[in-house]
Amino acid sequence: MKYCFGVDIGGTTVKLGLLTAEGTIVEKWEVKTITENEGAAIIPDVVKAIQDKITEKQIAVKDIIGVGVGVPAPVSEEGIVNGSANLGWKYKEVKGEMEEALKLPVVVGNDANVAALGEMWKGGGEGYQNLVMVTLGTGVGGGVIIKGKVVTGTNGAGGEIGHVCVNADEVARCGCGKTGCVEQYASATGIARLAGERLEKDEKPSILRGQHLSAKTVFDAVKEDDEVADEIAEEFGKYLGLALTNIAVIVDPEVFVIGGGVSKAGNIVLSYVEKYFQKYAFFANRQTQFALATLENDAGIYGAAKMILDK
Amino acid sequence: MKYCFGVDIGGTTVKLGLLTAEGTIVEKWEVKTITENEGAAIIPDVVKAIQDKITEKQIAVKDIIGVGVGVPAPVSEEGIVNGSANLGWKYKEVKGEMEEALKLPVVVGNDANVAALGEMWKGGGEGYQNLVMVTLGTGVGGGVIIKGKVVTGTNGAGGEIGHVCVNADEVARCGCGKTGCVEQYASATGIARLAGERLEKDEKPSILRGQHLSAKTVFDAVKEDDEVADEIAEEFGKYLGLALTNIAVIVDPEVFVIGGGVSKAGNIVLSYVEKYFQKYAFFANRQTQFALATLENDAGIYGAAKMILDK
Repeated sequence: MKYCFGVDIGGTTVKLGLLTAEGTIVEKWEVKTITENEGAAIIPDVVKAIQDKITEKQIAVKDIIGVGVGVPAPVSEEGIVNGSANLGWKYKEVKGEMEEALKLPVVVGNDANVAALGEMWKGGGEGYQNLVMVTLGTGVGGGVIIKGKVVTGTNGAGGEIGHVCVNADEVARCGCGKTGCVEQYASATGIARLAGERLEKDEKPSILRGQHLSAKTVFDAVKEDDEVADEIAEEFGKYLGLALTNIAVIVDPEVFVIGGGVSKAGNIVLSYVEKYFQKYAFFANRQTQFALATLENDAGIYGAAKMILDK
Repeated sequence: MKYCFGVDIGGTTVKLGLLTAEGTIVEKWEVKTITENEGAAIIPDVVKAIQDKITEKQIAVKDIIGVGVGVPAPVSEEGIVNGSANLGWKYKEVKGEMEEALKLPVVVGNDANVAALGEMWKGGGEGYQNLVMVTLGTGVGGGVIIKGKVVTGTNGAGGEIGHVCVNADEVARCGCGKTGCVEQYASATGIARLAGERLEKDEKPSILRGQHLSAKTVFDAVKEDDEVADEIAEEFGKYLGLALTNIAVIVDPEVFVIGGGVSKAGNIVLSYVEKYFQKYAFFANRQTQFALATLENDAGIYGAAKMILDK
């Protein structure tokens, strides 16, 4: 039996998985991410976690294919990170340092791209080779996969789909400094903002009034047939649907896989996005499929494992 | 010496090239495209042109690597075309028919994608592996190349960059049926339209008044420091620049290669596009390069040859 490790380094915890080469998780566990001191402890901690597991499971080194790692930062082809705000890292030779310490092959990728690969392999995109993953969380992230391979991009900015401009008239600024990014309307934060603006517009009754505004409360209200919530969801669907039509004419995927916290509201989220995708789509893209992500927090572990298996 | 053929089938003429495996054109010539009778003569005519050249040059069949073909239509992975308005074709097994007749390997691709490959190999994109070609002609076409391979897309709609939406408020319809496509502002037709609208707006003096309005007359007037022409070019640059920033966050190319009739005005065209690209770009994409296409009508021959050599 051959094994590999999938590692998903986040700002709070590192998720680790020991998998078979066929993609079954044998065991998964977490260690805390220590971001102090420019995140100097992170790589040693991950290395120790892997070494301890190898010892505990008495796995022969020759049976370990290698280690895949996802990190919240752009990553060069050589596995180098040039700064990660979430981890405290400045310049860091992640692949080099880990291979040196572990004496195993290591591949490093951006966490959003890695999650996309995970969903393609074992999740909502299983069976597809051309897919675009859209992660609707605090921001909007994503990953573009063409013929089974992640499009990393020249500057590690491939699949930065949160920053497709969908509203040239916007005056509020996105966290990236631009205006009109789809992230400003389709992230959890963006939906809460749309909700606040809609509620202030007039006095129309809504169960959202007086509630904490979030993607969850908005879609819960949609499910209760709240008209104001429906209008907010339409606005969300319009902007995200438009962004996805622009992505479709560039890379023409088989499927969009929608994940992240916002997607937990379920198929109702897809319905609003697909409605506007169909409205704005180029005719050749109208057959594009939509699916919900299914792996949740394990997408990174699966995707990281897949990266090293594909190497 | 090994050889290959590059064939670029257009609506008026078929351009053919005999090339060495290193990419030197030994000879190039044209035959007329006979579109009558659903274009039934096109493939036999191309086959005969190639066979005659093989005989004339006394090339041994074992020294011919194969034939690459670009056609003005979406093409499936199997080399099948499901209709081409320019050629009169309905369903056509282009690869199958040509291989059967020639007894040589044949690869078929969409002409815009093939031209992109040509420019990457021997033109404005030489030395790059990740590039987006933008063809500003009657319409706006394009091709996306990642790690040296064309992104064909699930429905053959990869690189349909003319149909990126850049103006959700547009009411005029694009030829594709959508509104606000970048083709409506950045094609030769689009620039002429912008020029007409600008001239009608007020009475500001311009050497364009009374002239035939085209991309050429507009950029010629820009070179004469005509203020109205400059405003039109700014409008063109704004929409195309915005479209390219949206492409950059998806596939993050090293370079945009700008070709087609509009690009014949030269670096002045790039200056307007780059200005707005810099204005709207995601920070990680700001280093993206711009270059003019250099192969003009030979891009298709080179790209088609490259396709068969890469097979």
